[in-house]
Amino acid sequence: MQNLKMAIQQMIRLQEKDWNHFSSLCELRTVKKGTFISVPERVPQEVFFIQEGKVRTMVIDLQGNEQTIHFAIENQFIADYSAFMQRTVSHYYLQALTDLNVVLIPRNAIEWGYEQMVDGQKLGRLIAEFYFTYHDNRILNMYVKSAVERYNEMGQLFPGIHQWVPQKMIASYLGITPVHLSRLKKTDR
Amino acid sequence: MQNLKMAIQQMIRLQEKDWNHFSSLCELRTVKKGTFISVPERVPQEVFFIQEGKVRTMVIDLQGNEQTIHFAIENQFIADYSAFMQRTVSHYYLQALTDLNVVLIPRNAIEWGYEQMVDGQKLGRLIAEFYFTYHDNRILNMYVKSAVERYNEMGQLFPGIHQWVPQKMIASYLGITPVHLSRLKKTDR
Repeated sequence: MQNLKMAIQQMIRLQEKDWNHFSSLCELRTVKKGTFISVPERVPQEVFFIQEGKVRTMVIDLQGNEQTIHFAIENQFIADYSAFMQRTVSHYYLQALTDLNVVLIPRNAIEWGYEQMVDGQKLGRLIAEFYFTYHDNRILNMYVKSAVERYNEMGQLFPGIHQWVPQKMIASYLGITPVHLSRLKKTDR
Repeated sequence: MQNLKMAIQQMIRLQEKDWNHFSSLCELRTVKKGTFISVPERVPQEVFFIQEGKVRTMVIDLQGNEQTIHFAIENQFIADYSAFMQRTVSHYYLQALTDLNVVLIPRNAIEWGYEQMVDGQKLGRLIAEFYFTYHDNRILNMYVKSAVERYNEMGQLFPGIHQWVPQKMIASYLGITPVHLSRLKKTDR
């Protein structure tokens, strides 16, 4: 769980005894490509930290089609964080796009962290702020950036994504059709 | 600033001496309808708490049109929170839709709160989580809710909005045309 420890240390001072207890509450999991690590209609009880692999967040839209809303890669957290915090049922599928190595961080570890860890609340604040900013950008960009710009920006957010993800998922994330995407890729990049 | 005090007390334990110092760093402002309380190309140095009135967040899109992205009402915070946190220039206009009474919470008050207030980090976490959840819902709903459902939900989030906001701003928030909106309102609600 060394990568998780480093990710935390980039945000706060981490005492060794706090890390020891916190990490003892977490679990390592390996997951096969294609597996859903979280599904709708269930109250999520965990946040995942990706040590190796890639995950997508997907919903089924009103027409019954899969829509890819987010991606997450190595050294990022992934969860239905809203449903986790509000203890409501999830609307999302979290799917392994590759074989995964993840740290499963259960609710009791997170709550222990808030209450007992030096800087635990600060850690929670910084993580919430990071994902707030990501979402805010996602909304803003739909208005102020062209599909080409958003396509290129994806490559900075998720290095290599244009190689490791099927085009239809990228089109869905960008909110355009696969035909539009393939036209974009032939033109002014 | 009694409403701000109550809003904070709903989230954390607030010590009287902490409130006294924190509130002494804040400023009361009255603002005329139509005024921009924050504009693009400037690093935001404050968060606003709305005591009375309504605000919208607006961007100019690629075609040069105004797009209304968010609203905020009494007892809510409003800011370009991403730009504030990252100390980057804003992309948003924050505009008073009515005459306003706001508390201007400057950066030094917020930083003092994080460092010195009992539960200051927790307060920051809860506020960031609240706005994360709002944004997450906004993205999710574009996929899983019809325009009619999203129209009705706006009325729960922002009571009375359908009376106090021009229809073109509501259409913009919903991501539909004003013509589509007026058709919706005549049909199956």
